[in-house]
Amino acid sequence: MELHHLQEWTRRHQRLIQEDYFHFLRFRTISADPSCREEMSRCAEWLVAYLERLGFSARMIPTSGAPLVYAEEMTAGPNCPVLLIYGHYDVQPVDPIELWKSDPFMPELREGNVYARGANDDKGQILFAILAMRLWKELGHSLPVNVKFCIEGEEESSSTGLSQLLPSMKDVLRADDLLVVDCGMLDETTPAVTLGGRGILTLDVTLTGSSRDLHSGLLGGIAYNPNRALVELLAQLWDEKGRVAIPGFYEAVSACSAADREAFTFRQNREDYRREFGITAFGGEEGLSLQEAKWFRPTIEINGMTGGYVGQGFKTVIPATAYAKISCRLVPNQDPEDIERKLIAFLTARVKQGIQIGCVPLGRGAAFRGDPHSHGVHALHRAYFDVTGCDACNILSGGSIPIVADLASVSQAKVVGMGYGLPGDGIHAPNEHFGWDRFEKGIWTVAKMIEGLAAHECSCAT
Amino acid sequence: MELHHLQEWTRRHQRLIQEDYFHFLRFRTISADPSCREEMSRCAEWLVAYLERLGFSARMIPTSGAPLVYAEEMTAGPNCPVLLIYGHYDVQPVDPIELWKSDPFMPELREGNVYARGANDDKGQILFAILAMRLWKELGHSLPVNVKFCIEGEEESSSTGLSQLLPSMKDVLRADDLLVVDCGMLDETTPAVTLGGRGILTLDVTLTGSSRDLHSGLLGGIAYNPNRALVELLAQLWDEKGRVAIPGFYEAVSACSAADREAFTFRQNREDYRREFGITAFGGEEGLSLQEAKWFRPTIEINGMTGGYVGQGFKTVIPATAYAKISCRLVPNQDPEDIERKLIAFLTARVKQGIQIGCVPLGRGAAFRGDPHSHGVHALHRAYFDVTGCDACNILSGGSIPIVADLASVSQAKVVGMGYGLPGDGIHAPNEHFGWDRFEKGIWTVAKMIEGLAAHECSCAT
Repeated sequence: MELHHLQEWTRRHQRLIQEDYFHFLRFRTISADPSCREEMSRCAEWLVAYLERLGFSARMIPTSGAPLVYAEEMTAGPNCPVLLIYGHYDVQPVDPIELWKSDPFMPELREGNVYARGANDDKGQILFAILAMRLWKELGHSLPVNVKFCIEGEEESSSTGLSQLLPSMKDVLRADDLLVVDCGMLDETTPAVTLGGRGILTLDVTLTGSSRDLHSGLLGGIAYNPNRALVELLAQLWDEKGRVAIPGFYEAVSACSAADREAFTFRQNREDYRREFGITAFGGEEGLSLQEAKWFRPTIEINGMTGGYVGQGFKTVIPATAYAKISCRLVPNQDPEDIERKLIAFLTARVKQGIQIGCVPLGRGAAFRGDPHSHGVHALHRAYFDVTGCDACNILSGGSIPIVADLASVSQAKVVGMGYGLPGDGIHAPNEHFGWDRFEKGIWTVAKMIEGLAAHECSCAT
Repeated sequence: MELHHLQEWTRRHQRLIQEDYFHFLRFRTISADPSCREEMSRCAEWLVAYLERLGFSARMIPTSGAPLVYAEEMTAGPNCPVLLIYGHYDVQPVDPIELWKSDPFMPELREGNVYARGANDDKGQILFAILAMRLWKELGHSLPVNVKFCIEGEEESSSTGLSQLLPSMKDVLRADDLLVVDCGMLDETTPAVTLGGRGILTLDVTLTGSSRDLHSGLLGGIAYNPNRALVELLAQLWDEKGRVAIPGFYEAVSACSAADREAFTFRQNREDYRREFGITAFGGEEGLSLQEAKWFRPTIEINGMTGGYVGQGFKTVIPATAYAKISCRLVPNQDPEDIERKLIAFLTARVKQGIQIGCVPLGRGAAFRGDPHSHGVHALHRAYFDVTGCDACNILSGGSIPIVADLASVSQAKVVGMGYGLPGDGIHAPNEHFGWDRFEKGIWTVAKMIEGLAAHECSCAT
């Protein structure tokens, strides 16, 4: 198909496309928030109906959490490749809500950008992949490859439901290539082929020092303040060289070779980060390049922390409890369960004696790596070039898509990540947005990619 | 006056007394909360009207914050002593509100206790002092000493308004004795004469690492997390012996002598604290007794701390800012301004390079000490004995009443603290309450104390 046919189609259908996009964005699908449970189901139902209207055989599969949307169209025949497309319909929480300029669930198109929670991550991106199928069909073609969609509702809260289902879905999910539509560009003009992402584990930590909140005058100097115990404990997570101080944390981590560094394009420097995010202090281990820190090294972060009174004015309280949310980003060969055990052991061993510690794991997923020579990667490179006129770069992601490593293993497919996200899109932050032009390029790129894939002979038994 | 006359009066008027007490408690007077401003004024007006009905010359004096209630009755004549009574009508914030068994501003009498925010601290206590005056009058006597009331509305948020007024109120406030009705008992049966309290300073600290919240995958290992900077910074506040690590912090602190320790009765041991508050870990400097730690040594506490996402589930965020509320308790000779400067200098010098730090002082007050041989102390000891049948102990308080040192200096009066609070009353905590029996003893004790004071000749020129 010629690019101008694709462009013509999106131009003609822009109003309808926007209606569908905005409809999808209006579902309040914060998977971390239990009050969104029903809305998650309504959104999944909407997706199933949408895919059915395109001719897919689609269904909602219940999980322990939010339902999974599975759809397939295998009409290309057993000699054609099978492409499994992964994305998610759940979104991040919206706070600090007061920093949003418009309602996160009332999408607005302003100056060429769609503003809404999920506009990019990942509703906008998975929708352009679905619209690529619609485009093929409405231009009068049947799909040139067999396509499966696996769209989950718990990516932002560690994919527990899907990960429990996976062992039973081996046959259903079998594929040649796994396209993860939840990734970004290298920069505003250069598309990127994502060949890996870091793993993750998340943990809630609660410290308790007394059975109730205490008065800091009457008991200051007597009771050990859990806030103090928390800062003293968490400050030990890093050594003086900025390395994570947990024994064995780096055990399985391979040193980053020159070849590693060269296989992937990394353009940003500190100045970019200062300008883009206003970052004034840099972390990571001493002596590492930003590329190495972001792509080849594991990290630990305190993502949330609270204890005592933080409202207006002052309250002279020694709180009964202090609380933190901690996550690690992991690199290939690090076993999330093993690191989780080591982290909990570290915290438990180091906490001030007498302070009670409770650790609740919230989820984990291993790092993943794709094959730079797979058919999917080749087809994606060509599609990007056709659509943007630019050569795409191979990159890794510092972020995590917890389920991808398991999904790749179960489906036996070769992973490749694509997407038109940019660091400035505000995913996981207030005023998330996605450029309408990039959204359209997403449609065309996926449409072009399946055309390219069709040129390859099938290598799996469907 | 015989005790049984006093008892008879409170018995006869119990319903009316309770109505007034509950009316007072229903005013939502959280001085730290700007939305309570109007309610503060309404409460002050109510107090003025109440004192006027008792024959006092009373007025509301505007301050930069909540109004001050000042009232006096100087009818005892120039040869009689002047007693200045200090208390406050503002209360602490109420969160965590979900732990309250009844509305903090809808007082309830349950099993002999009045439950409400301020039931004890300090509405209950200042009201029993006012009711002592009413009792005198309703038993047909004029007041035997000259009495001044100074009731402020900002004790819980550092007394800024009153402290600005004090220099201009030298003549108005001149007195022989300053009775601070905001103190407690030694234990459930032993009343206490409070001869000192610690000073305090409070500080808001904000650390900023970027211009907006960041994604911990995309920027983990690159941006320095302000939560990390905060725990690393605050963990340095103490050295390995539990001493505050700020240079010069202990400069003005006198060593605690054996005489110091013996002048005051201190009965609690660790087991008491474990049982009463569920305290499982003890703080303070290595090698100190609980008494020394609580009464003779300064402290630093993290009263509140927050940064990043702390809601349900998980959000992989590196927050733009992290935030803490810190306070110090100070002992005699420590200058709050000096310590504040040293604390800010310490934090500013030690914070991770590149992280921006903002420190906002929220208030301060010096420690105070009374004279164990003053007329007021003698009169209070006798009154306690008459009412309870027990010898009262001399104690210090670990808590702070920030304005008292300045108030004593301006009024040239000798300080003595009284009250029927118990550590288990939950002041500054959920379910604050005050025993009705102790509330009544408060009335009788103040009534008896002014009778005792009247026996002494006046020593000031009014």
